Amino acid sequence: MPEDNSYFFEGVEKLLEIWFSESANNIDDLRTIPREEWEGLLRHVNCEIISFSRNTLIDAYVLSESSMFVSKRRLILKTCGTTTPLQCLEPFLKIAKQYGFTEICDLFYSRKNFTKPEVQLSPHRGFCEEVTYLDSIFPEGRSYCLGSINQECWYLYTFSKSEAINIKEGPEKADPDQTIEILMQNLDPNKMTIFTKDKFSEAHEATSNSGIDQILPDMDIDDFLFEPCGYSMNGINKKGEYMTIHITPEKKFSYVSFESNVALDNYTNLINKVIKTFQPAKFIVSIFANKSSLAYETMKDLEIEYSKTSSWNRTNMQCCNFPSYNLLFAQYSLK
Amino acid sequence: MPEDNSYFFEGVEKLLEIWFSESANNIDDLRTIPREEWEGLLRHVNCEIISFSRNTLIDAYVLSESSMFVSKRRLILKTCGTTTPLQCLEPFLKIAKQYGFTEICDLFYSRKNFTKPEVQLSPHRGFCEEVTYLDSIFPEGRSYCLGSINQECWYLYTFSKSEAINIKEGPEKADPDQTIEILMQNLDPNKMTIFTKDKFSEAHEATSNSGIDQILPDMDIDDFLFEPCGYSMNGINKKGEYMTIHITPEKKFSYVSFESNVALDNYTNLINKVIKTFQPAKFIVSIFANKSSLAYETMKDLEIEYSKTSSWNRTNMQCCNFPSYNLLFAQYSLK
Repeated sequence: MPEDNSYFFEGVEKLLEIWFSESANNIDDLRTIPREEWEGLLRHVNCEIISFSRNTLIDAYVLSESSMFVSKRRLILKTCGTTTPLQCLEPFLKIAKQYGFTEICDLFYSRKNFTKPEVQLSPHRGFCEEVTYLDSIFPEGRSYCLGSINQECWYLYTFSKSEAINIKEGPEKADPDQTIEILMQNLDPNKMTIFTKDKFSEAHEATSNSGIDQILPDMDIDDFLFEPCGYSMNGINKKGEYMTIHITPEKKFSYVSFESNVALDNYTNLINKVIKTFQPAKFIVSIFANKSSLAYETMKDLEIEYSKTSSWNRTNMQCCNFPSYNLLFAQYSLK
Repeated sequence: MPEDNSYFFEGVEKLLEIWFSESANNIDDLRTIPREEWEGLLRHVNCEIISFSRNTLIDAYVLSESSMFVSKRRLILKTCGTTTPLQCLEPFLKIAKQYGFTEICDLFYSRKNFTKPEVQLSPHRGFCEEVTYLDSIFPEGRSYCLGSINQECWYLYTFSKSEAINIKEGPEKADPDQTIEILMQNLDPNKMTIFTKDKFSEAHEATSNSGIDQILPDMDIDDFLFEPCGYSMNGINKKGEYMTIHITPEKKFSYVSFESNVALDNYTNLINKVIKTFQPAKFIVSIFANKSSLAYETMKDLEIEYSKTSSWNRTNMQCCNFPSYNLLFAQYSLK
């Protein structure tokens, strides 16, 4: 299929993660919100549900643009293209309230810099606009830019209840939590042909042929191959952990994202597996870990070790210590 | 003296540090640039020389707005108020060339967020404008924002020759280099009265009464007390190291900056001394160290230790590993 010169798709996702404080009765569960409500919320975002899987701990949705995960008190909404996830934030908070969740304890909104910011819709036309919007809801939120503002970077907006009320250790000990994201660009074109309908008619063929099913083998996979190309998958395991991969294979703007909250004390092997699977020419890694996480104390050393033993040039590395989370951010390009 | 309600002075400095590669003959020296040339350059900045000291390794100028240090192949220009240091960059590069310096090996431009950005002059009306200007001269420069973009932050622009040509260890081993800056706000008003002509008629009285002369006792001090208030000092020692302090004492916008390139393997004691001398309610610390510096490997641990043993709340800490420098940035406020 010849590529139209003017055609462009923004693979870079907007990632919203919201944690609520336990509800008063300790029974309320975001997963009791009915499907029609989610469908209504996603209309604000300009995307829709195309597949669904679940286990006893987590609901996983494949969306027309990326993914959504719902667990007892956490929502993860990750959408690419020109979707508008922040448009659904206020409607979602209203609905969550009806289901017993009145207080956000942690919120993270993050994304890489867009390849074409000029085609985005309000309030996503720039990080300043996104921050202004989020500040109107969270006056104590904080915004950061990691990486180089005038080259490639990754934006983060965070709100933390414990920070807002100035306590270091909340009365409720937080669940262990960690998230690793690997955002890859300039991918190997041969690898990318796997994720086209020309090559495979079924998503599961792309999943196994690429080796995606070997990255975290304990994950139950729900995958989707788009017409004429493009790929999304959600994986969930019995511990309630998730992984999600989204692939924009077109050579001119190839982009692959990997994300998981799998608890490891060393992410080196996982990073290596992901990089070997997709063969990007450049990628960024971000690892969040709260104080209860296995990864919290060790991730700095591990990441340094990874850089020394690999064939990658680490062009930047930044560590941030927030009151309840550590964040590691690193950029790599081929030596 | 009653303070005029509308009166405001921006204590926050713009800090430009330029390192040239050794000239071909290894003899050329920026200190051979005559005084009239510096005076001409400083007219572009909108400030002038008000005092001068030197030793065999370094020339130190107190300016009407802050300080300038010149050594063999390094210029440091630090100016506050509404000065325009970037306006002198291109004229300076022309003059430096006439004196044998044709190649910049490292450049750093940094500043805290302004209290009143709207009164600044071009190209300093915002970090974006500063970056656009610097990018026009250094297409490979990188810009960073540390701290929270929507609250308090510190901006940095860097250009490194070794990064631009993609080498990790240059053929010439860099001189050990480190810089610590402590930028303090909301200072103790009683301490600040020391830096007014009401209290002392001579700068040296303010210097000794405040304890500034005890911070780094080996420094030869050139100090200046402004009418009706405000204070600047440069200190230089026999190793060619410098320190510089600038004080805006007015209660409504009090600001004190401390900067030094003194080589230490532990900055904890120095930070404690500076904080006890000025008693701010909040401050930020930045420490740069290149790979040849004593401070390079140890500064992360030391800073963490400082935070644990002090009465300060560390609201943020970020470490950046650049190709030839490590940078530690931390924000503190009173517990």
